[in-house]
Amino acid sequence: MRVKGKHYHTIWTDDANRIFIIDQRPLPHAFKTVELKGLDMFCDCIREMWVRGAPLIGVTAAFGMYSALKEEVSGGDDWKGFLKETAFERLMATRPTAVNLQWALRKQMMLANMHRSYDEALEALYKNAVEIKAEDIAISEGIGEHGLKLIEAIYAETKETVNILTHCNAGWFATIDWGTATAPIYKAHQKGIPVHVWVDETRPRNQGARITLFELMQEGIDCTLICDNTGGHLMQHGMVDCCIVGTDRTTRTGDVANKIGTYLKALAAHDNNIPFYVALPSSTIDWDLRDGFDIPIELRSEEEVLKIYGLNSEGWKGMVDLAPKNAKAANYAFDVTPSKYVSALITERGVCAASENGLLNLFPEKAEIV
Amino acid sequence: MRVKGKHYHTIWTDDANRIFIIDQRPLPHAFKTVELKGLDMFCDCIREMWVRGAPLIGVTAAFGMYSALKEEVSGGDDWKGFLKETAFERLMATRPTAVNLQWALRKQMMLANMHRSYDEALEALYKNAVEIKAEDIAISEGIGEHGLKLIEAIYAETKETVNILTHCNAGWFATIDWGTATAPIYKAHQKGIPVHVWVDETRPRNQGARITLFELMQEGIDCTLICDNTGGHLMQHGMVDCCIVGTDRTTRTGDVANKIGTYLKALAAHDNNIPFYVALPSSTIDWDLRDGFDIPIELRSEEEVLKIYGLNSEGWKGMVDLAPKNAKAANYAFDVTPSKYVSALITERGVCAASENGLLNLFPEKAEIV
Repeated sequence: MRVKGKHYHTIWTDDANRIFIIDQRPLPHAFKTVELKGLDMFCDCIREMWVRGAPLIGVTAAFGMYSALKEEVSGGDDWKGFLKETAFERLMATRPTAVNLQWALRKQMMLANMHRSYDEALEALYKNAVEIKAEDIAISEGIGEHGLKLIEAIYAETKETVNILTHCNAGWFATIDWGTATAPIYKAHQKGIPVHVWVDETRPRNQGARITLFELMQEGIDCTLICDNTGGHLMQHGMVDCCIVGTDRTTRTGDVANKIGTYLKALAAHDNNIPFYVALPSSTIDWDLRDGFDIPIELRSEEEVLKIYGLNSEGWKGMVDLAPKNAKAANYAFDVTPSKYVSALITERGVCAASENGLLNLFPEKAEIV
Repeated sequence: MRVKGKHYHTIWTDDANRIFIIDQRPLPHAFKTVELKGLDMFCDCIREMWVRGAPLIGVTAAFGMYSALKEEVSGGDDWKGFLKETAFERLMATRPTAVNLQWALRKQMMLANMHRSYDEALEALYKNAVEIKAEDIAISEGIGEHGLKLIEAIYAETKETVNILTHCNAGWFATIDWGTATAPIYKAHQKGIPVHVWVDETRPRNQGARITLFELMQEGIDCTLICDNTGGHLMQHGMVDCCIVGTDRTTRTGDVANKIGTYLKALAAHDNNIPFYVALPSSTIDWDLRDGFDIPIELRSEEEVLKIYGLNSEGWKGMVDLAPKNAKAANYAFDVTPSKYVSALITERGVCAASENGLLNLFPEKAEIV
C-alpha cells in the first residue's frame, strides 16, 4: 500500500539480497527504513517491535534465519548446529504468542536440514523467505476478497457508509501488504463502497493511533481515532456496523488470542448484536490447541504502560511518563476471545463459523490432526 | 486524605473566606494549590477540569455562586438578576452530565431568592457551600462504611488479599474526602483488610493513572496501573474479586452514566460472574429519569484523544501528540451501563439493587416523584 503516494511493502530485498524494513517505532511522527543484518539485529527487531504483527514477524524471522546463516557462520563451521541451537532458539524466544514465528522458523530449519552444502542452504533459506513473503501477500488478498463480501452485504442493506471498528493494527503494517483485518476495508474502498473506520488507539503501545490510523489515512480511507474505552458506547448507539480485528493465534475450536482489549469489544458487539469478525491467515491457526486459555499470554514490560510515545510542540519526540513515580503496572499483551463471541472467521480460503466444524470445512486436510 | 503525609480536602476556605483548590491538571507530576476568585475563574476551573468528579464539581459550583456574587456585583446592582441570568447560567453550562452541578446551583439560587439583602444573601451562600461540603464528606464516609461490608464479605470467604478493579477517579479527588468508589477501599485498608487495586488508566484524560494511582499510593494502598484494555483478561483469570466504580448520573431505575469505558468493564464482570458495584452519593440520582440512554453524553474536544499529558526524562511536562497530523478523533466522555449489569449500588444510606425498587427501599421519600 502507499506511504506519501509511493508503494511499499513492510519488508523487502534488493538485488544484493540485502533486507530492509520500515522501522515502525517512530510512526506516525517519522517514517524511517532500516537495513537488517545479522542475528542480533533480527532478534532486536522482533523483540523490540521495530516490526510487529504475526504475519510480518513470521516473514522477518524467516529472513532472520537466512541472515544469521550468512553473517554469523561460514561453510567451514558447524553451521547446522549454529542454526539449530542458536539462531532458531534465539529467534523463537523473541515473541512467545505469535504462532507464525514458530511456523516460519520450523520451515526454515527443515529446509536447512535438507541441504549438505552451506551455499545451497543459504540460497534455499533466502528463496524460501521470499516465497513466504509472496504467499503472505496472496493470503492477505484472499482475506480481503472474502471479507469484502461481508462489507458488501452490509452496504447492500443500508446503502449508507459502512462503519467498521478495528482494534490494534491488523493492517498492512502487520503483514507485507493489504493487512488482515484491513484487507477487506481496502478492497471495499477500492470498489467504491463508502467505508469509515473507528480506530481503537490500543494502549499500551497505541498501534491503532500510531499505525492503523497512519496507514488508513495514507490510503485515503475515512477514519476516526477513539480511545479503547469508546467502542461500547458507539455500539450501543448504532454507530458501528461491524467489527473486524486480527488475531495472533487461533485455536482449532475458533477461540482467538489477539491484542489485549479485543475481548472487551467482542463482548460489546455481542451485547448489541453487531457482527464481530476476526480476519486471519491460516498460518495463525494452532491446530493442536482446543482451548484458547491454553495460549500463553506474553507479559511485557511495565514501562510500556507507565510511558507513552509522543511528540511535543517543540518537535521533541520520545517516551513520556504518565503515572506517579514508583508506580507499579501490569502489561498483559493479549487476551483470549472465546469463539462464542466471534461471529465469523475470515480466512484466505473463505469465511467460516468460529468453530472446529467451521474451520475443518475450509481446511479439511487438518481433520486428522487432533 | 493525605498528600505527602499532610491531610487535605480537595477544596477549602481560610479565615478570610478565600477559597482554595488542588489544581488536578498537573497531577501526578506536580502538586499545586490555587485560590479561586470570580465567576470566570470558577467557570474555567470546572470546564477545564482543574477540579472534576460530580460531588466536587457540585461543591465548587456552590462556592462559585458565592464568589460571583461577592466579586462581580454589589448591593446596589441587580444582583439577583446577575445571579440568575449570568452566574447560574454560565456555571450550569460548564459540564452537562453532572447532576450535582445542577443540584448545587439550584440550591444556591433558591437560597439567594430567599434574601432581600445582598449581605445576607452573600453570607447564606457561603454558609450553604460550606454545609454542602461537610455533607459531602459525611456522604462519602457513609458510602465507605456500607461498601466496607461488601469487601469484608469477600475477605471473610477468601482470607486473601481482595483484588478490586476501579475505573477513572471516583476517589477523594473527585469528592472532598474519602471518595465514592474508593471510600470502601480506604475504610477496608484502615480496618486492616489486605486490599489491592487494579487501576484503569482511563483514557483520554488518564484520571486513573494520574489521580487514582496518586491518591492510593499517597495513602499507602497497594495498587497496580493497567491499560483500559486489560480488565477483561484479569477477570477471565480470577484476578479480580469485585469492581467498584463511581457514577456521574444514575437513573431512578439504576442505569448509570459514568466515565467512558465503564460499560465495557461491566460486561466483562457480568461474563465472569464478578460483582460490579457502583458507589454514589444520592445527589447523583436523577429521579426524573427512567432510561439511562436519555442522559445527555458530553462530547469533549478531540484534542484530548489526539494528545496526552506526560513528563519527559528532561523534566519537560505537557501535552504530546499521539496520532498522525490531521487525524480526526471522537471523544465521548461517558457511557451508560444498563442496570442489569450492575450488581448493586452503594449509597450513603446503604447498599441496594440497581433497580427502582432497590433505590426506593433506601429513598422512600422519592416514591411520589415519577
